[in-house]
Amino acid sequence: MRILLVGAGGVGDAIAKIAARRSFFDTMIVSDYDITRAERTIAWIEAKHGPQGDRFVAAQIDASQSESVAAVAREHAATHVMNAVEPKFVPTIFAGALAAGADYLDMAMSLSHPHPEQPHALTGVKLGDEQFAAAGDWEAAGRLALVGMGVEPGLSDVFARYAADHLFREIDELGTRDGANLVVRDDEGNEIFAPSFSIWTTIEECLNPPVIWEKDTGWFTTPPFSEPEVFDFPEGIGPVECVNVEHEEVLLMPRWVDAKRVTFKYGLGDEFIGILKTLNQLGLDKTEPIRVRSANGPVMVSPRDVVAAGLPDPATLGPRMTGKTCAGLWVTGTGVDGAPRDVYLYHVSDNEWTMAEYESQCVVWQTALNPVIALELLASGAWSGAGVLGPEAFDAQPFLDLMARPENEGGYGQPWGLQERTPVA
Amino acid sequence: MRILLVGAGGVGDAIAKIAARRSFFDTMIVSDYDITRAERTIAWIEAKHGPQGDRFVAAQIDASQSESVAAVAREHAATHVMNAVEPKFVPTIFAGALAAGADYLDMAMSLSHPHPEQPHALTGVKLGDEQFAAAGDWEAAGRLALVGMGVEPGLSDVFARYAADHLFREIDELGTRDGANLVVRDDEGNEIFAPSFSIWTTIEECLNPPVIWEKDTGWFTTPPFSEPEVFDFPEGIGPVECVNVEHEEVLLMPRWVDAKRVTFKYGLGDEFIGILKTLNQLGLDKTEPIRVRSANGPVMVSPRDVVAAGLPDPATLGPRMTGKTCAGLWVTGTGVDGAPRDVYLYHVSDNEWTMAEYESQCVVWQTALNPVIALELLASGAWSGAGVLGPEAFDAQPFLDLMARPENEGGYGQPWGLQERTPVA
Repeated sequence: MRILLVGAGGVGDAIAKIAARRSFFDTMIVSDYDITRAERTIAWIEAKHGPQGDRFVAAQIDASQSESVAAVAREHAATHVMNAVEPKFVPTIFAGALAAGADYLDMAMSLSHPHPEQPHALTGVKLGDEQFAAAGDWEAAGRLALVGMGVEPGLSDVFARYAADHLFREIDELGTRDGANLVVRDDEGNEIFAPSFSIWTTIEECLNPPVIWEKDTGWFTTPPFSEPEVFDFPEGIGPVECVNVEHEEVLLMPRWVDAKRVTFKYGLGDEFIGILKTLNQLGLDKTEPIRVRSANGPVMVSPRDVVAAGLPDPATLGPRMTGKTCAGLWVTGTGVDGAPRDVYLYHVSDNEWTMAEYESQCVVWQTALNPVIALELLASGAWSGAGVLGPEAFDAQPFLDLMARPENEGGYGQPWGLQERTPVA
Repeated sequence: MRILLVGAGGVGDAIAKIAARRSFFDTMIVSDYDITRAERTIAWIEAKHGPQGDRFVAAQIDASQSESVAAVAREHAATHVMNAVEPKFVPTIFAGALAAGADYLDMAMSLSHPHPEQPHALTGVKLGDEQFAAAGDWEAAGRLALVGMGVEPGLSDVFARYAADHLFREIDELGTRDGANLVVRDDEGNEIFAPSFSIWTTIEECLNPPVIWEKDTGWFTTPPFSEPEVFDFPEGIGPVECVNVEHEEVLLMPRWVDAKRVTFKYGLGDEFIGILKTLNQLGLDKTEPIRVRSANGPVMVSPRDVVAAGLPDPATLGPRMTGKTCAGLWVTGTGVDGAPRDVYLYHVSDNEWTMAEYESQCVVWQTALNPVIALELLASGAWSGAGVLGPEAFDAQPFLDLMARPENEGGYGQPWGLQERTPVA
């Protein structure tokens, strides 16, 4: 297996570092628009694990041009293209991989466009629609595009398949629930506002109309921040206010797993919801450039880019952050024994540990872990397929086994949890 | 009297329009960095009042260069320079007027700089400090700088002098209180967020540490948004949440009026306070340029300029706005009869009326009214002086009389109110 990793930002860097401990691949080509970022990642790996020879190679790439992606993939005879950049580059990387005859993985899907008249009731172009439209091309070529293979989407979708195959006879709701108790402090030890994930992507997810799936209705949307609910997260994180958010799971799970309702709620908390509402009210979430005065005369900038530029880079927050992040799937329905069942399947990532082991902050690291496990399953043949498929199209058992098995027994040493909750009558 | 008006933005435009109805001056030179703005103001006046001959003249000016201000003042033999631009240009216009041998008026004073170690307890460089430091130069030249002569500061300071001379034997607190019930709607009639005054200046006022004066302590500061209080405004505006804000009155009143405590509270309301807190938390209130990506490569822009560029120009809001704004001074203490007294002296401006009469929104128009009255008092000799003086250095009676007298009797037809409130025992 020869993996072209596109992007050596926070998540790309962590993917390479996690892969460095594994032997399932021959070469990983670490590529970035700024090749020095790729070289920095490889230097870290060599400092930790010794010289890598041809196992890790740096390359320059332009993710916004499918020709560039295809050319780099062909030059290095890549068998798999791993997309680790912002979702706006999905179409070009996706097309470049197919053109080069490589398989493809990503952690976020092609972007949505709201319904022109009723954005808070009906779907327009949905997340991933552009990719599923090309499914025939991928099937015809006998190539696999494994889409949404991060932690959420990704591990959450693996949990959905596991629940359907092993825990439930009938599923009422597949509800992804994400929460954290992360705190970032400044040099004086005061708590500061610093989102732990790309603010550009967070604004996109949270201010787009959230999408919900119901068996009788299909996909529909609501206004942002709908259906607030306090979810009690495990391992000391505790209760966090969660709201509906547009997310890939809702588009993926109903295609392969039978359920009455599929939702995604993000534990943004009161404060962050207020901040996002204010950004929206002031038009600071907008991506279209506006005219702004500057010392060199008027310039055109996107307000959302200014918001992002004024905040610390999430990948740099690790040393100043404490706490844990939890990704998981809340499943309700009828258990295999016929009784009501209510479980939360989850994985927790502790920033102290990810920093000590990988110099990577926990949200970024947790995202990066899952595609590496998926690549290893594809390398071994435990997972195989052709077309455009989500993680729930594959057997969950080998994934969860490999993830949880201790490192000294060949696994990733990352146990996942199953919390039995009290079913609501 | 030959007045050089610097700035034909919202307030400058309204000053010229209000002055156009008066005969106390010979010429007003309406100047702006963009001369077409000055020409537009004069065109409006000529359309309404007929040809103006030499009474109104347009000029180009660079308010950031004292040489430019002095040159335009000399060229037009200006006797008075009226500053109607953002407070950051105070130092250059103030110096340019003195260099040209003209008297000077402004509506906001030179900016403050927080105390480097204890910004929320001690003052650093205070509002107007730079101007008062030059008082000797103005006295020596026999020229007058009348500073803080808008509505707040300005009319509020006139009220302070009036209360001390006519209403109170002893003053406990001079508390400027500003509130409004203005609403802005979009084309569909939905309420939208659109500040009625320059967001740049509003951020400056509200996020700087508020300053308070007490007889025993002198000037000191607090954290932003301190001492929230609900103040009940007259003429149907009703109760509004007010908080301490840095404002010129607190620096001006104690220099000429005897009181135990001087404060300024602005009726921002819960929602606007939340928005300002968020802007601060995200660093979007900052004025120092930051590096932001753009289609033409990285550019340097000030986040606060981006916030301002994304919001509608307050001067354009008039047609979409309804409601009233109230500026006033709450005075408590011992009345001339020796009994406890509690009064609110105020002026209300109704957007419907200011739009119909002046095509100017009410907050902007109310600010512009007061310097025109002051100029008329200086022209008649009712007010005179030399040095750097606040409005409370002059007799309040002729100002308030001229303001309230009906237009057909030679006044401005703008009654002010005196509300007797129940003294707290």
